[in-house]
Amino acid sequence: MSGTLYGVGLGPGDPELLTLKADRLIRGARVVAYPALVAGDSLARGIAAAAIPEDAREIRIEVPMTPARAPAQAAYDAAAAEIAAALAAGEDVVCLCEGDPFFYGSFMYLHARLADRFAVEVVPGVTSMTACAARAARPLVARNEMLTVIPGPLPEAALAEALRAADTAVIMKVGRHLAKIRRVLEAEGLAAQAVYLERATLPAERALPLAEAPDPAPYFSMVLVTKGADPWL
Amino acid sequence: MSGTLYGVGLGPGDPELLTLKADRLIRGARVVAYPALVAGDSLARGIAAAAIPEDAREIRIEVPMTPARAPAQAAYDAAAAEIAAALAAGEDVVCLCEGDPFFYGSFMYLHARLADRFAVEVVPGVTSMTACAARAARPLVARNEMLTVIPGPLPEAALAEALRAADTAVIMKVGRHLAKIRRVLEAEGLAAQAVYLERATLPAERALPLAEAPDPAPYFSMVLVTKGADPWL
Ligand SMILES: C[S@@+](CC[C@H](N)C(=O)[O-])C[C@H]1O[C@@H](n2cnc3c(N)ncnc32)[C@H](O)[C@@H]1O
Ligand SMILES: C[S@@+](CC[C@H](N)C(=O)[O-])C[C@H]1O[C@@H](n2cnc3c(N)ncnc32)[C@H](O)[C@@H]1O
Repeated sequence: MSGTLYGVGLGPGDPELLTLKADRLIRGARVVAYPALVAGDSLARGIAAAAIPEDAREIRIEVPMTPARAPAQAAYDAAAAEIAAALAAGEDVVCLCEGDPFFYGSFMYLHARLADRFAVEVVPGVTSMTACAARAARPLVARNEMLTVIPGPLPEAALAEALRAADTAVIMKVGRHLAKIRRVLEAEGLAAQAVYLERATLPAERALPLAEAPDPAPYFSMVLVTKGADPWL
Repeated sequence: MSGTLYGVGLGPGDPELLTLKADRLIRGARVVAYPALVAGDSLARGIAAAAIPEDAREIRIEVPMTPARAPAQAAYDAAAAEIAAALAAGEDVVCLCEGDPFFYGSFMYLHARLADRFAVEVVPGVTSMTACAARAARPLVARNEMLTVIPGPLPEAALAEALRAADTAVIMKVGRHLAKIRRVLEAEGLAAQAVYLERATLPAERALPLAEAPDPAPYFSMVLVTKGADPWL
C-alpha cells in the first residue's frame, strides 16, 4: 500500500492561522516536504516549525528563483521523485504550503507530477488575500460584486484592463513591480482606493497607503483596490 | 473600557478547518453572535458548535432571506445595537462567520455599523473557494494567471463577459441560478471545463460534472471553471 501525499495549507504567516487539520497532520507526520530558497530560509517551514515532530524526515525543495523555468522544473522533478519514493514505500508525506496550496501555490507543481500515481489530499488554508483584507480592515466583496485577482508581473496594459473591469481587485506578487503597479493605479484614478500590505499577520507586518509603499517591495506584499462599494447592505 | 468585536472566519464547513486562533477565541468567548435563518438553522453555529462554551451568551442574528433589502437591514441594525451594548459594557463579542468574514460574508454589515465606535479584529478563515478547489482536485491559478470570482445572480451578459476575460473563474451563489449559469457556460464553450460542488468539506459534500448538477442547486454550491492552464511549471 502506497502512502498519501497531503498538500497542507499553512495560512499567511501567523502560526495560529494554521487550521486544526493542518496542525494535526503536521504533528503526526513522519515525512515533511517544503519549498525553500536555495541555501536560504523556508517561510513554510518557519510557519509550521512548532508542529513539526523532531524526528520527522525533512525533504527540502530548493527552488531557484530565476526567470528561466528549466532550473525550477528540474527542482520539482527531483522533489517529486524523492516524494514518490517515500509514498511507494508506504509512507505518508506532508507537504507544507504557505497560504492555500491551490492559490498560486507551488504545491500545484508537485500535484501535477504525482496525482496520477498516488493518493493526494489537499487541505485548504487561509490565503494571503483574505488575511491582507482582514489586517487592512477592508471588506473585499459583498452581494453581486466581482473580485479579480491580478498578478503584478503582468504587462501594464493587461493590468489596466483588468483593473477597469474589476469591482474589487487584489494585486499579488508585487515585489519589483511596485512602480509599474503604482503608475497604472494612478493613471486609472484608483490610487486613493489602494492599500499596500507586506508580511501580513507576521511580526514584521506593515500596511501603508500606496504612495508610501517601498520600491522595490518585498516578495510578500500585495495591493488591495476596493472601489468602495456600499458596505451597509 | 469597551470590549473588542472579533469577526471570526470558520472555514467552509468541516469543523477541523477552523484555525487555531478561531478555535481559541471561540473557546474563550463569553458572548457569541451568529447569523441564522429565521426560525431555522445556523450553519455558522453548527460549524463552531463543539468549541462554544456552554455558558456563553448567544446573540442569534435572524436574517430574512427576501429580495428586498430593508428587512435584512433592520435585522443587522438590531443585531448591531445588541452587540454594541455588550461591547460598551466591556464584554468581548465573538461573531461567527462561515468561510472568511470579508469574502462575501455578512460580517461586513456588522463591521460597517460598529467599526467606527469599537475595536474590531477580523480573523481570516478558509474560504469556500479554495476549499472547493481542494475537494475537486482543481488548482485555481498559478504564475501570471488571473482569477475572477463571479456572483451567480449577475445577468447573463455580465456573466458571459466576465467568463470570457477570466483565466480561471469561480461562480458563487449558484442556487436557483444554475440553469442560467449552465446556459452561459455552454454558449461560451466552457461547460466541459466546469465542475459543480455543493457543501464542500461537509458530510453531504458532492462534486459533479456541470451537466449533472441539480437545478435548482442548494445555497451552498459553487461552479469552478478552470481553463486548463499548464500545471507543470
Ligand atoms: C507564490 S504566491 C503564494 C500565495 C499563497 N499560496 C496564498 O494562498 O496566499 C506569493 C505571493 O503571495 C502574496 N503573499 C503571501 N503571503 C503574504 C503575506 N503574509 N502578506 C502579503 N502578501 C503575501 C504576495 O503577493 C506574494 O508575492
Ligand atoms: C454569502 S457567501 C459566503 C462565502 C463565505 N464567506 C466564504 O468565505 O466562503 C455564500 C456562498 O458561498 C459558497 N459556499 C459557502 N460554503 C460552501 C461550501 N461548503 N460548498 C460550496 N459552496 C459554498 C456558495 O456559493 C454560497 O452561495
